[in-house]
Amino acid sequence: MVKVTIWNEYRHEKTDEAVAKIYPEGIHQQLASFLKAAGMATKTATLDEPEHGLTEAVLAETDVLVWWGHVAHDEVEDAIVERVQKRVLEGMGLVVLHSGHMSKLFMKLMGTSCDLKWREAGEKERLWVMDPSHPIADGIGEYIDLEHEEMYGEHFDIPVPDELIFTGWYEGGNVFRSGITYKRGSGKIFYFQPGHETYPTYYNVEIQKVIINGVNWAKPTIRDYPVYGNAKALEEIKNSGK
Amino acid sequence: MVKVTIWNEYRHEKTDEAVAKIYPEGIHQQLASFLKAAGMATKTATLDEPEHGLTEAVLAETDVLVWWGHVAHDEVEDAIVERVQKRVLEGMGLVVLHSGHMSKLFMKLMGTSCDLKWREAGEKERLWVMDPSHPIADGIGEYIDLEHEEMYGEHFDIPVPDELIFTGWYEGGNVFRSGITYKRGSGKIFYFQPGHETYPTYYNVEIQKVIINGVNWAKPTIRDYPVYGNAKALEEIKNSGK
Amino acid sequence: MVKVTIWNEYRHEKTDEAVAKIYPEGIHQQLASFLKAAGMATKTATLDEPEHGLTEAVLAETDVLVWWGHVAHDEVEDAIVERVQKRVLEGMGLVVLHSGHMSKLFMKLMGTSCDLKWREAGEKERLWVMDPSHPIADGIGEYIDLEHEEMYGEHFDIPVPDELIFTGWYEGGNVFRSGITYKRGSGKIFYFQPGHETYPTYYNVEIQKVIINGVNWAKPTIRDYPVYGNAKALEEIKNSGK
Amino acid sequence: MVKVTIWNEYRHEKTDEAVAKIYPEGIHQQLASFLKAAGMATKTATLDEPEHGLTEAVLAETDVLVWWGHVAHDEVEDAIVERVQKRVLEGMGLVVLHSGHMSKLFMKLMGTSCDLKWREAGEKERLWVMDPSHPIADGIGEYIDLEHEEMYGEHFDIPVPDELIFTGWYEGGNVFRSGITYKRGSGKIFYFQPGHETYPTYYNVEIQKVIINGVNWAKPTIRDYPVYGNAKALEEIKNSGK
Repeated sequence: MVKVTIWNEYRHEKTDEAVAKIYPEGIHQQLASFLKAAGMATKTATLDEPEHGLTEAVLAETDVLVWWGHVAHDEVEDAIVERVQKRVLEGMGLVVLHSGHMSKLFMKLMGTSCDLKWREAGEKERLWVMDPSHPIADGIGEYIDLEHEEMYGEHFDIPVPDELIFTGWYEGGNVFRSGITYKRGSGKIFYFQPGHETYPTYYNVEIQKVIINGVNWAKPTIRDYPVYGNAKALEEIKNSGK
Repeated sequence: MVKVTIWNEYRHEKTDEAVAKIYPEGIHQQLASFLKAAGMATKTATLDEPEHGLTEAVLAETDVLVWWGHVAHDEVEDAIVERVQKRVLEGMGLVVLHSGHMSKLFMKLMGTSCDLKWREAGEKERLWVMDPSHPIADGIGEYIDLEHEEMYGEHFDIPVPDELIFTGWYEGGNVFRSGITYKRGSGKIFYFQPGHETYPTYYNVEIQKVIINGVNWAKPTIRDYPVYGNAKALEEIKNSGK
Repeated sequence: MVKVTIWNEYRHEKTDEAVAKIYPEGIHQQLASFLKAAGMATKTATLDEPEHGLTEAVLAETDVLVWWGHVAHDEVEDAIVERVQKRVLEGMGLVVLHSGHMSKLFMKLMGTSCDLKWREAGEKERLWVMDPSHPIADGIGEYIDLEHEEMYGEHFDIPVPDELIFTGWYEGGNVFRSGITYKRGSGKIFYFQPGHETYPTYYNVEIQKVIINGVNWAKPTIRDYPVYGNAKALEEIKNSGK
Repeated sequence: MVKVTIWNEYRHEKTDEAVAKIYPEGIHQQLASFLKAAGMATKTATLDEPEHGLTEAVLAETDVLVWWGHVAHDEVEDAIVERVQKRVLEGMGLVVLHSGHMSKLFMKLMGTSCDLKWREAGEKERLWVMDPSHPIADGIGEYIDLEHEEMYGEHFDIPVPDELIFTGWYEGGNVFRSGITYKRGSGKIFYFQPGHETYPTYYNVEIQKVIINGVNWAKPTIRDYPVYGNAKALEEIKNSGK
């Protein structure tokens, strides 16, 4: 059973009535509800808990971490970001949702600004499947239609993704690499763009399916961590320059 | 004319007689000498200069930065690392040599530990060309032989390179992705493994050719920086969710 | 001076009045005119010439081949396709335009069906730059607008491109990897989607700029062809299993 | 249960006593024996059977095809090659072993010459794991040692692999991309270099583990085949150029 920890900033839901109506218990609880229904063991963690809920003990028991943050990226402590990054490099999976693209954690793992174009116009988005045989697209047709989403547009300042799974088409005339994967250390990372707090995106069953697939894809491979540092020769060295 | 700044930690040369014999004026001066001979405008900068020699003014006048560091990675100030990273994302080229793989700068741009296996046995290395039509391999035959080098071995904890140009074969039984490229923001990055301070690697004309090629490849494309942030719709939005 | 050969099927222009009005001397002549104005040495070749105009002598004198074909892919002789493929593997650059995606040549180099969705509705296309520092995007702003183009839509059945330079947004709701690169052997390949015969796409100066950039990018690196076959050992083999 | 068909040329075993001693029932039976022991449903097919044993019916019932061929690549009929390629594009997995790199099938899927350096000196090979968290490397330590193997060396004339899983180090001084993956259409392809007919490579349990992993990795994702061809607009087109 995959052990998932869902991290949410959990601020919009407490200050913005429109958001509270959609996610009365917080975005994390909605994410947890469908991941649990898919047979996963779920925990949640939020910004205002001690250590943001991401203690060493919690991370040690986490196969895949899901991340949603937006207005309070700066309030996440650097020490916690480093702790989580370390766990990703050791093999913990990471699913970064929507505005998490500018979280300290994602930026640290990417090495770039992760900046992009955006527009809150509630326009239509169509997510085209670019890699139909990828397990993250399993069970999805040719595209997913979202009646209203925030626009995230190119140029998106990221390293070239290892894999491009979805490209977003926006009514307002933009495109976006909406579903992408990376490996960092032994950890697998899936970034997925939909999920603006003022739209009921995480109630959409196709979006849920993609996130469930993403968590399953990102779970660690059971293996030994590579050995680094000083290494003995495996073959005879005949003419050493020492 | 490409404007190159060569940054060197410049410590081994002042404390280790064997190194001083090979590079009496410092590794940076040897690098500068062949880059200058190749028609480039060269400057040097070292750790112990104010701001490590990497002032805003110097960076603004640099097309490509070459980086060599080893024992004093930790002494490089975080603020300078961030400044250099920002310039790379804006388009400045970066050529990272040998032990620069664990510089704060390279690790920050990669997002991983950049750890590896190593061995100072002075063994033979053969650098095989993996991408013979790449401009960085221009003028190089099938491989480059180095009589004595430090072994750097896999696993190398880096993101999957955009391009793999050289793979190193070591007498002691290891292999290594010895020449690799990345894009980060608008900046091009070339990492090249040879160059241990106790061997005269930077006097080897083939190694020089690769570094010259690397600098030429990494120089910025003349272009406008992308526009990020709030963006107006380019097409009419009929059914806004706002 | 880059030596470019522009190959055109040259059928639509002779049978369809609307096309003849736009390209009275053939698409190849319009392509040649702006490539020549950019300082290139241009030749043209068409399907109905002997050997389709692609003799060994012509190919030997070609740095980059530009390919436009549509209704008569099947009439291109297999022997000529093999001859051109061989030259690409040896280093000749190849720029494949629009419906050339289903030419025997491109399919042979890709190994896939190269199939896609299409629609002749004369809709608006916007080509977004995905890789702003790539030389093929040099001099182009954030996007190129085309008032009317044929829609080519995902899923596009191609190998994962080495580089993704443009993504097309279509008014009718589709997206497409419109500008992509590959290496095959020592040859560089650029596929660029715009150019339906019933629209004056190749008179658009931005489209011209991209094609000029693409030809410059695809030109061969001067180098020796790799050596294949039986190879002597470079190091002593102590315990041969022979 | 994964349905695997193992295809073997089956010639060396019948004409070369040394090979017959190692693989008395043919390489295909040895491959089948450990794949069966791993819980897979196995079938075999050989060159001299009608339709090379690869009838439409057999392929329709195959999840993953394993391919071993060497001296008789040219005897494989083009029509069968096209049939198998079509099935790969539709989603059937393909594991190509050793000298299968120059089979018509692999070359057709790659679009390149697939040529390489080789040497039958029975030298030592060490297969280094380059991507330790990849499922194909699951259960393998840092490397696999093979006492005697045929050398396959760079440059290897293939498209840039989607993933690089193993790099081979050879006693005689060469390196090779020994374990690589590609996607073509909906099919996953794994090429794995070890397996020269005169050495007992397929009795090595680590090599067996990699092949079992490769077959499991390559099995098709359950999904609908993408729809290609003429496509209706999904959004209103306001200013058609028709």
